[in-house]
Amino acid sequence: MSENTPVHIASKVSKQRLLDQLKQLAFFGALDNGGVDRQALSKIEIQARRWLIDWAYSLGCKVFTDECANLFIRREGQQDLPPVVTGSHIDTQPCGGNLDGCYGVIAGMECLAILNEMKITTCRPIEVVVWTNEEGSRFSPGAMGSSCYVKPELLQSYLTHKDINNITLKQALQQCHQHFSDLPRRSRVPFFSFIELHIEQGPVLETENRPLAVVNGIQGVRWYEVTCLGESAHAGTTPMPIRQDAMTLARFTVDQIEQSVSHLPVDELRLTFGRWDIKPNAINTIASRVTFTLDFRHANPDVLAEFDLIIQQCMGDNIQIKAIFDHEPVAFDTALLSRQCATAKALHIDHLSLMSGAFHDAMHLAEHCPTSMFFVPSHRGISHNPAEYTHPDHLHLGAQALAYCLAELANQD
Amino acid sequence: MSENTPVHIASKVSKQRLLDQLKQLAFFGALDNGGVDRQALSKIEIQARRWLIDWAYSLGCKVFTDECANLFIRREGQQDLPPVVTGSHIDTQPCGGNLDGCYGVIAGMECLAILNEMKITTCRPIEVVVWTNEEGSRFSPGAMGSSCYVKPELLQSYLTHKDINNITLKQALQQCHQHFSDLPRRSRVPFFSFIELHIEQGPVLETENRPLAVVNGIQGVRWYEVTCLGESAHAGTTPMPIRQDAMTLARFTVDQIEQSVSHLPVDELRLTFGRWDIKPNAINTIASRVTFTLDFRHANPDVLAEFDLIIQQCMGDNIQIKAIFDHEPVAFDTALLSRQCATAKALHIDHLSLMSGAFHDAMHLAEHCPTSMFFVPSHRGISHNPAEYTHPDHLHLGAQALAYCLAELANQD
Repeated sequence: MSENTPVHIASKVSKQRLLDQLKQLAFFGALDNGGVDRQALSKIEIQARRWLIDWAYSLGCKVFTDECANLFIRREGQQDLPPVVTGSHIDTQPCGGNLDGCYGVIAGMECLAILNEMKITTCRPIEVVVWTNEEGSRFSPGAMGSSCYVKPELLQSYLTHKDINNITLKQALQQCHQHFSDLPRRSRVPFFSFIELHIEQGPVLETENRPLAVVNGIQGVRWYEVTCLGESAHAGTTPMPIRQDAMTLARFTVDQIEQSVSHLPVDELRLTFGRWDIKPNAINTIASRVTFTLDFRHANPDVLAEFDLIIQQCMGDNIQIKAIFDHEPVAFDTALLSRQCATAKALHIDHLSLMSGAFHDAMHLAEHCPTSMFFVPSHRGISHNPAEYTHPDHLHLGAQALAYCLAELANQD
Repeated sequence: MSENTPVHIASKVSKQRLLDQLKQLAFFGALDNGGVDRQALSKIEIQARRWLIDWAYSLGCKVFTDECANLFIRREGQQDLPPVVTGSHIDTQPCGGNLDGCYGVIAGMECLAILNEMKITTCRPIEVVVWTNEEGSRFSPGAMGSSCYVKPELLQSYLTHKDINNITLKQALQQCHQHFSDLPRRSRVPFFSFIELHIEQGPVLETENRPLAVVNGIQGVRWYEVTCLGESAHAGTTPMPIRQDAMTLARFTVDQIEQSVSHLPVDELRLTFGRWDIKPNAINTIASRVTFTLDFRHANPDVLAEFDLIIQQCMGDNIQIKAIFDHEPVAFDTALLSRQCATAKALHIDHLSLMSGAFHDAMHLAEHCPTSMFFVPSHRGISHNPAEYTHPDHLHLGAQALAYCLAELANQD
């Protein structure tokens, strides 16, 4: 059956249906400015889930859920083997775009739809999963559904977390479960593999003029909060030599930290001083206290460990350092990565390899099963923003690459 | 009458009464933390005015007010000549100390009290003035009473200014005038001279270990607001070379501005970047917009003009510059300054000369009459703070110097 080769399956991906269904999903929580506000487990997200489940049923799929309200849309295979899984999330930032997360879910559904149309039954089941609360904008932390899937013991500690309206995660989950009381709950099952398709949310693909990336891992991250202490004094009366200007100290400290990582290749470097708090923050008063955050990311755990040491050395009587978050780098499965490169070659897609600087559900799944990701370009790198945009041809190519991989993987014993 | 020499008059200044009366005044608006909150034209400031007026009447003085509610406490002289004037203000910052402004008023009153005790009638009248709203913390701008005294046409434009409770200056002035309807209103009269005694609000006298400064002028000032524009982007996904980080641009701009004035002698330099606003101010997002203020002061108008040019040259596509305030340097009256130096010598007070980096009512009076100031030390330069402190011996010395000068000036034809 040469018509059922992965190349042939990929060729059947419908750009139009992909775009139409993305547009349909974007109606749920649509903002006047073209963006989307669809918070995790909200009424509007529950409506979007209902729409997706109806589509799944129309394709003859089974749908399961679990304690954390993750959704599993399952197309059965010839054998009851661990499924090949794809998917992402459908919650958004408060003023997000219509691609972040949604693209991976809709493209996965498109793959199921093609297999239906082609009347192909794969060896293994294929599942499209919708992970709960990836953005973390309603309940912290983000990537909650995927992390609780991999480590179910985490959920208990999250249940008391509240949104800005004082609704607990427990209440929000109960409400969601009530809406979908018809869905069977399923405990964790082994996955054969997990491949997540996502927009890059960065500018590299566009800059390099490539339509596809094989993502070989996720950078590790360190978040620190640095507080520099000085003494507030009058801007007019205090001579420079005896000032203790906390902002001057903060600027010096930032310079030092930049200097300490200047030996790293610039294309590997991600160092951001994003949040600042200045006290008393008055025109004619020298700052007494400046707190700033730093976000450092790198793919190499040794570089991250070295960075931790550098930061510890910055501490002093007037410089306080607080570690507020960290995550080690994740390397995706090398066999999957090879398969993805072969996929791109087979489909004549000019791709490159890169590390993800952003977190994704795949970061957690990598602890559960062979995992990796595809990226398609983000115009000007913009994401978490109504202006989030990927050219339809690139959305199409990404879904084709996904279809190819899923078809191959699902026919493996 | 050798007993009535200025030296003798100065020797009669009572340290105890000076401290007692400062303490009395500090009860009005006393805070639990030892500080004072006495906003201009507030009920509590009106009570303080009443206390001061009662004291003035007990000394046999006349009391006048004017449109802007400035208070003039007048001890008549032998002749109806333009008065020798001293004084300052009694309004405070929201969490201020008990010396800023108050010291100059109480010390002036102490001088009148001595002359009474010594039964001296000076040739000229002596007046102690309480200028309205010097701090500018309730109604902007600061130094309102003194500026409106010198330029009465200004008041009309200030009447609609509101405090944080939406009370207009006009309403606050009406309320104050109602309380003091017994006081005659007086239009502007010529002053023979104005000498303001004040705490330094800076650390120079303490650092130099001198109890008194003859203040030869007030530095000119430039306030600018600089806005640096970038593009917000993901801290993890955006490579360094293509970032447009507004905070990086702001830090670079601050470095450039510092560099541009690095040729100035460091003891003359006053350059402060005090207020910062960062957008979106998130840990993992590159800043798209950073606005900071700069406060530059110098005694030389040419240096200030050169600085204006330097700042204009910083402007660019991504750097917006807005001038928000400026004031030219003020040079105090040279004849008065010589007299003050002679005073210090006669009283064996080890003094120095300095420029004021802070604004004072004297800045405006200098346009009306020969004007100058004395400073006494501020411990650690702290002001606008409950910890504001000057050693009682220094408060005493400053009042003696004032008494000496007033006595000399008031006996001039």
